[in-house]
Amino acid sequence: MSTIYEKALAQHKEWKGKISVSSKAQVRNKEDLSLAYSPGVAQPSREIAKDKEKAYDYTWKGNAVAVVSDGSAVLGLGNIGASAAMPVMEGKALLFKEFADIDAVPLCVNSQDETEIIRFVEMVSPSFGGINLEDISAPRCVTIERALVEKLDIPVFHDDQHGTAIVVVAALMNALKLVQKTPENVRIVVSGTGAAGSAIIKMLHNFGVKNILAFNKNGLLAKGNQNAENFLDEELLEITNPENQECSFEQAFVNADVFIGVSAPNIVTEKMVASMNEKAIVFAMANPEPEIAYEKAINAGAYIVGTGRSDYPNQINNVLAFPGLFRGVLDSGVRKITEEMKLVTAKAIASLVDECELSPENIIPSAFHPEVVTRISEEIQKLVRK
Amino acid sequence: MSTIYEKALAQHKEWKGKISVSSKAQVRNKEDLSLAYSPGVAQPSREIAKDKEKAYDYTWKGNAVAVVSDGSAVLGLGNIGASAAMPVMEGKALLFKEFADIDAVPLCVNSQDETEIIRFVEMVSPSFGGINLEDISAPRCVTIERALVEKLDIPVFHDDQHGTAIVVVAALMNALKLVQKTPENVRIVVSGTGAAGSAIIKMLHNFGVKNILAFNKNGLLAKGNQNAENFLDEELLEITNPENQECSFEQAFVNADVFIGVSAPNIVTEKMVASMNEKAIVFAMANPEPEIAYEKAINAGAYIVGTGRSDYPNQINNVLAFPGLFRGVLDSGVRKITEEMKLVTAKAIASLVDECELSPENIIPSAFHPEVVTRISEEIQKLVRK
Repeated sequence: MSTIYEKALAQHKEWKGKISVSSKAQVRNKEDLSLAYSPGVAQPSREIAKDKEKAYDYTWKGNAVAVVSDGSAVLGLGNIGASAAMPVMEGKALLFKEFADIDAVPLCVNSQDETEIIRFVEMVSPSFGGINLEDISAPRCVTIERALVEKLDIPVFHDDQHGTAIVVVAALMNALKLVQKTPENVRIVVSGTGAAGSAIIKMLHNFGVKNILAFNKNGLLAKGNQNAENFLDEELLEITNPENQECSFEQAFVNADVFIGVSAPNIVTEKMVASMNEKAIVFAMANPEPEIAYEKAINAGAYIVGTGRSDYPNQINNVLAFPGLFRGVLDSGVRKITEEMKLVTAKAIASLVDECELSPENIIPSAFHPEVVTRISEEIQKLVRK
Repeated sequence: MSTIYEKALAQHKEWKGKISVSSKAQVRNKEDLSLAYSPGVAQPSREIAKDKEKAYDYTWKGNAVAVVSDGSAVLGLGNIGASAAMPVMEGKALLFKEFADIDAVPLCVNSQDETEIIRFVEMVSPSFGGINLEDISAPRCVTIERALVEKLDIPVFHDDQHGTAIVVVAALMNALKLVQKTPENVRIVVSGTGAAGSAIIKMLHNFGVKNILAFNKNGLLAKGNQNAENFLDEELLEITNPENQECSFEQAFVNADVFIGVSAPNIVTEKMVASMNEKAIVFAMANPEPEIAYEKAINAGAYIVGTGRSDYPNQINNVLAFPGLFRGVLDSGVRKITEEMKLVTAKAIASLVDECELSPENIIPSAFHPEVVTRISEEIQKLVRK
């Protein structure tokens, strides 16, 4: 691992920025200047002053996304602040460009006050066609996202929540197909109820899963116990633990069909996995060390194992979702990202693994599958046209 | 003029954004992804978390500028708001790229509250190496700029103030050389005390001009009269009108050596120009129609005439200043733009017209002179090293 870090540091020093701004118009002489700038530029400005929608015709708005972070929950690094979050947000902007040809700009903000961040994004929103929130700690990220979805007339998407949820559900769609179970009949244990965990649970619920047991670091969420820590946990009480049972994390694994971890390294033992139902599915996605190592889970009898890591089969990776989703949303001109669009995105991702290629080691396509972005984008556009 | 506007509109529709984001790093496979994004990106983030200055090594900060506007005073269009200002700010970003290879991002903000704009820029500042404020109405622009210069550890520059002032002083340096007068001995009438006018007057003062008469739309600024409208005008009282005289705009022209207009079209008559001192200098820069048309001023006996227009000699154009100034400031690593840097920039611009080529029709280089940016940048770096 240390060599990757050393190499990445050297590369970053060479790049001095993984993205740059490019000209689409030339400015070689006075005539060019008079068209792209004064006085010609006054005309598109006048048109937009009359009708703001014209910004999509005359500026980069229709292809531009702001990647906004306060640096409060960056990768596995925690609250490292705005400046230190820049390499990650630049990286995200790079992925937007490389995978979906979207012009994304990293905006790391020097405040961790929810109201200030909401106002910041609201203020900058005329300059962009979409907002990708990134690496903002829970439950603040949800408060911020909900306020912005309400206030803005452009799509707002918190990738740590919904990007992760979409890819987990995509992987689960194919995994369930392989083990011949249905969402209605499986019991799923989820560890972690932060940004990713809460969004995964909500999306599982929308996907039809009835029986979810959600654990945060206090234990199982159940009505009447004191484990819920915030409004997000409270909301999960409504859609999890249908029998309102009480049990330990270890007990929850007994006969569970699926485990989904977005929490902490090495908290799941082989014994726990061994106690699961037959053809158990384990998605252990804590980063960089999963809840249980891939080999251990397999050895303990799990049928399908996925992690966030690229060095094992079944990498459950956000890069599969956000580029295509934003491509589809920008190209179809919708101004809100709906639950239906997220499910369509998950289905599109799942569909990229042909039935004949589906296996316990191959439930999810590579992020480099050449059709990921176009397939998702087309499916979203189809949905919007309906 | 209507054909330029029609052509510009058609071009803007074709461009759909005059700038785009480009990748400097490739993402073709898992290894690329692990270097540019997770997990490798964690290392530069850790380094910056330890020392914020490292952002200049590992991100685009050292070459990135935010072009910030609230759309309250756009070109000749007035208060058209954030969305309609986008084509202009994109144009500005394009000029940054084309002239100085700087990565500039247009950020049009949906608020015209000074405190909110200050806070906005403060919040976004970790993501950029410099801030170019643009088309914000006076005197708010000055309040905003001063607060930001005070608060931020990166250079902040309001181009409508200082860009204009620098190019006017550059033009005046060469004009005075031609007419063999010195800043100490000329009397200058300035019309307009907004963003550009007030900055021009302050820079003229720093350049050594002792005798300036400043007019706003109420008339001459003089201690004891009621013409001053705001704190900016009040400040000008300290450095203008040394004899505290009272006179009309017309009377002020009698025996004046220089007229500088950044105010309103067609407010200067041929008679007024004819009453000026011999070898009169007239910079009539109201946009798009100057205070007096080029031909009229020449016919009335002015020796040197400059305007903001590209279709007459001596175009006094901000594009001459800001690209090189920012290039020099970013490359020398300074965090504040000083009065001395502005004067050095003006001198560098003036020096690009060879003494032997200097003439009443050629006092200022073209914005397309191939050495403008490098000359300014080198002079600033020399100054900083001193």
